[in-house]
Amino acid sequence: MSDATEIRIRELPKDKLSADHFELATVAMPEAGPEHILCETLYLSLDPANRAWMQGATYRSAIEGGQVMAGYTLGRVLESNHPNFEPGDLVEGDGGWRSHFVLKGKHASPVAPRDPLSHILSAYGITSKTAYAGMLAIGKPKAGDTVVVSAAAGATGSVAAQIAKASGARVVGIAGGERKCAWLTDTLGLDAAIDYRGDNLFEAMKRTCPDGIDVYFDNVGGSTLEAALFRMNRLGRIVCCGVVSQYDTGNPSPGPRGVPGLLVTKSLHMQGFLVMDYPELMDKADDDLASWIKSGQLKVAEDIVEGLANAPQGLVGLLAGENIGKRMVRVGTEK
Amino acid sequence: MSDATEIRIRELPKDKLSADHFELATVAMPEAGPEHILCETLYLSLDPANRAWMQGATYRSAIEGGQVMAGYTLGRVLESNHPNFEPGDLVEGDGGWRSHFVLKGKHASPVAPRDPLSHILSAYGITSKTAYAGMLAIGKPKAGDTVVVSAAAGATGSVAAQIAKASGARVVGIAGGERKCAWLTDTLGLDAAIDYRGDNLFEAMKRTCPDGIDVYFDNVGGSTLEAALFRMNRLGRIVCCGVVSQYDTGNPSPGPRGVPGLLVTKSLHMQGFLVMDYPELMDKADDDLASWIKSGQLKVAEDIVEGLANAPQGLVGLLAGENIGKRMVRVGTEK
Repeated sequence: MSDATEIRIRELPKDKLSADHFELATVAMPEAGPEHILCETLYLSLDPANRAWMQGATYRSAIEGGQVMAGYTLGRVLESNHPNFEPGDLVEGDGGWRSHFVLKGKHASPVAPRDPLSHILSAYGITSKTAYAGMLAIGKPKAGDTVVVSAAAGATGSVAAQIAKASGARVVGIAGGERKCAWLTDTLGLDAAIDYRGDNLFEAMKRTCPDGIDVYFDNVGGSTLEAALFRMNRLGRIVCCGVVSQYDTGNPSPGPRGVPGLLVTKSLHMQGFLVMDYPELMDKADDDLASWIKSGQLKVAEDIVEGLANAPQGLVGLLAGENIGKRMVRVGTEK
Repeated sequence: MSDATEIRIRELPKDKLSADHFELATVAMPEAGPEHILCETLYLSLDPANRAWMQGATYRSAIEGGQVMAGYTLGRVLESNHPNFEPGDLVEGDGGWRSHFVLKGKHASPVAPRDPLSHILSAYGITSKTAYAGMLAIGKPKAGDTVVVSAAAGATGSVAAQIAKASGARVVGIAGGERKCAWLTDTLGLDAAIDYRGDNLFEAMKRTCPDGIDVYFDNVGGSTLEAALFRMNRLGRIVCCGVVSQYDTGNPSPGPRGVPGLLVTKSLHMQGFLVMDYPELMDKADDDLASWIKSGQLKVAEDIVEGLANAPQGLVGLLAGENIGKRMVRVGTEK
């Protein structure tokens, strides 16, 4: 068989990530040992959490310099030494930044085809299911509530905001730049948008949330979380989904003022979570997401980077906020 | 009738509170108008929240200079123009720092006698019920959990810690000074104590909580909350009950590092609350508290200041942490 390619971390970033922190290598085609499967990578998911993994142990062990970059992948089985899989099957797993990957069969998840296949990572992927679990199990928006979502043009935020709309809430999205803000109101149909690059956040939240905030779905942390805290209504819920403002820096900011003071005086509920905390919701999530896509209540936004070699710049750009919707890398060809 | 006395706020504090911020005044005995009751004050509750009220609006409107200081009181009815009360009845309410107070009948709560009467404000008072609701409805300690309580020698903390013990948890209390720490382990029977004045909090939590923290009942905020966040176990609960480290200052510290980052990576649940959020638990709280007192699992600690004139110094001392257990002022005489 021909060679395979992989992208390694040449050196861990001390501050901002750049494409220079990675290097492409050509290697021998990996082989599937006993109980393992060999797959070709179709799509590689790019996520802000990739950068957090470089900062130390999180819910997974830290990534070290010299290693192949970790990443969630959609692959097609080429060879299988595991009874659950046969060539041609689609699988998801932590395949890493590779043209071909080998996983233990028990570490790969079989996945049903979708049309297009990229929907497996976008509409029905981890980011969508994260939005689903966080918004519905923690945020619990009711009709008439005001819901604010940060990084609302991103993969998770855009789905979280649309789920809140489908729940009957008034939804305000926060994003960077006029193009994204226009997309939030004009394409997704949100009730208002805040440009965090141009607006004073405290004033913008006051203007767009005249009745206060009942649910804040937070993807960014930092000063945006702080501004939301001061605008929360009594008994409000803050869904802590991510901290993208703090991933790509060697100098994280202090925590937001108002913690825990405003939590006490306003009886606020603030909860962090990972999608894997809610396995019991996943089947219903697939059904509900499909139903909202069909009804037009959920618009799927994808931002596809072509070719594994462009993954480093794709991640750097994601951290700079250049994407709208779910960014992924097309690595192999759909057949 | 004779004169009454009251204590007014001469000037709001800009930084630390001192007794000079108050002034005692002799006034004519107040009169009960229609639908009102006139009461003599038996006990005045002193609470860290009294200081927070001077910082601006919280769950109640802010206190202003020139006003009589607000405070929760236990009184005995002298005159009643309200059908629910008659002379001799015991009532609770926001009577303020007064020898005698007048309230609308609908703003006073009838209360059954206890022996001693001071138990109405200590064992069965707002601080005990706050500990009860926060620990059981939010903290939810299970047998074998490690529970950490800050301000554990205070009115709320001492009860919260003992309720966690009664739930079968391993309990570590944080307090200031050797005397309080010895009281936590020797009198209350907690499993360990941390002296926040002498110990490095990060190291002390590592030493006393080798299996991490499952429930942190936070009365103080600030650096203690930050240290606990880094020691929390996955799916842990942080009960945000108060922020006493931030009340008596004109220069509040920034929020704790780790918010929201550690909430996300460890799926932490952080919730602020007020006891009034849990009216449905109050009858059971009275029953459970009485049962634990009877079984010896709950030791009632009171710290009684004699005389209304000593209320200012009593509050200043409370904020400096000189009390063990529930501090109150004996204003009138039990008959």
